[in-house]
Amino acid sequence: MNKAARNAAHKGRLYLIPNTLDFGVEGAQVDLRSIIPAQVLEIAARLGHWAAENAKTTRAFLKRVDALAPLAQPLQQLDIQELPRPAKGQQDKPGAASASDARAWLQLLAPALDGHDIGLISEAGLPAIADPGAQLVAAAHAAGIEVIPLSGPSSLLMALAASGLNGQSFAFVGYLPVDAHARSARIKELEAWSLRHQQTQLMIETPYRNAALLDALLTHLKGGTRLSISCGLSLENGWTRSASVADWRGKPQSVPDKVPAVFAILGA
Amino acid sequence: MNKAARNAAHKGRLYLIPNTLDFGVEGAQVDLRSIIPAQVLEIAARLGHWAAENAKTTRAFLKRVDALAPLAQPLQQLDIQELPRPAKGQQDKPGAASASDARAWLQLLAPALDGHDIGLISEAGLPAIADPGAQLVAAAHAAGIEVIPLSGPSSLLMALAASGLNGQSFAFVGYLPVDAHARSARIKELEAWSLRHQQTQLMIETPYRNAALLDALLTHLKGGTRLSISCGLSLENGWTRSASVADWRGKPQSVPDKVPAVFAILGA
Repeated sequence: MNKAARNAAHKGRLYLIPNTLDFGVEGAQVDLRSIIPAQVLEIAARLGHWAAENAKTTRAFLKRVDALAPLAQPLQQLDIQELPRPAKGQQDKPGAASASDARAWLQLLAPALDGHDIGLISEAGLPAIADPGAQLVAAAHAAGIEVIPLSGPSSLLMALAASGLNGQSFAFVGYLPVDAHARSARIKELEAWSLRHQQTQLMIETPYRNAALLDALLTHLKGGTRLSISCGLSLENGWTRSASVADWRGKPQSVPDKVPAVFAILGA
Repeated sequence: MNKAARNAAHKGRLYLIPNTLDFGVEGAQVDLRSIIPAQVLEIAARLGHWAAENAKTTRAFLKRVDALAPLAQPLQQLDIQELPRPAKGQQDKPGAASASDARAWLQLLAPALDGHDIGLISEAGLPAIADPGAQLVAAAHAAGIEVIPLSGPSSLLMALAASGLNGQSFAFVGYLPVDAHARSARIKELEAWSLRHQQTQLMIETPYRNAALLDALLTHLKGGTRLSISCGLSLENGWTRSASVADWRGKPQSVPDKVPAVFAILGA
């Protein structure tokens, strides 16, 4: 056991529990065994304390876990606390919400300070990535609580792997601006940066705006730039298309508006 | 079935098979069930054709798979082809190797053109990320072969999740220069970029240089910058420490020289 682990030995640990990628997709529940390692399901099944983006969807997830790895306690008895919601407009500014409410984050860690393990889970994929959970992880480090990330799906990295774009240098930049002018400027900025540094740029969009984002990308990117879209990763009808912008323009393909998608570009 | 899938229906598919994170770590074989979903192991077990960074380690991996999900064919009968090695000094320049040998990449896809599924696997984690496999994926897209990424561990994203640093915007920049002067310049450049854009910067190092990289980071970063190191992720003695550079300096902690580590910084 290393030093950090010894210091934390009397405390519970913060486990980062992966979720599926089928969140919000109607009628598309995947088999958990296709997406989460068996022993990760077993760890999830024994945790009595949870920090979650949403308690209701976490209960639904744990019900699916229970069918494969029986929960150590009845679902109703689990302690599931929701993460503080960032103030409107602050979602993309980590630290902004926590500064005003550090106590709320520490409160979520109380079970670990009392010696109980906690699971952190988000709505999809790995927690603390593209969601507010990172602030809980930071609070755990500050409180000397051991953080244990578990293996599971990341739609960002699955999309990157499936894109064939540069996987030796890449960035995830979150959402693009909604305003058309700011959006086109941002697209051109990302394309220029990507070309200059040969760094793949990954972005996401709220599913109902997928088509609008594709439209904006095809309008503002150069024909030679590579564009890859992964849609419904891990789902039965999921697909990845990776081609030049010119090819996308020549053979249009629509992106469904109710399925999560990841967009990746590489300047060429 | 979508249009791309229909067009590719007579061809085999390229499955991106995740590997474990214990590569090269003596005596540290993890249980596959802790790191790879059960159904992904079953897919791996039925594939007869493989494209791999290294045939020998792929056979060793498949032997571990066989113990949990019996292989459809004897190990000796599997067709395991190695990826073309990039010319020395070209490892970080995607496209450089393939331009000189596009035929070699297409050759690897011959089984898929004949209707057989192929598995792509790297030495650790997800293939086509931080390894040469992306060129095979790109060739598959060009040849109209469907690419299917499977869920598994990514040490980069597990490290990011465990860091508590910004998971809404992050970049992976690969290896830093070995030359001391170029390295310190690069560290300062990444720190300035990270501060300005609040973008976490992730990097890796050859394990025997882990200590030298930590040294360089502690020498050249500002005291307020956040530094997170994840060492031996998924392994029994793995750990993540996330603290300010000033804290790292005040309480030094060594990074083992035979265990993979991921380094992450965030300017503050």
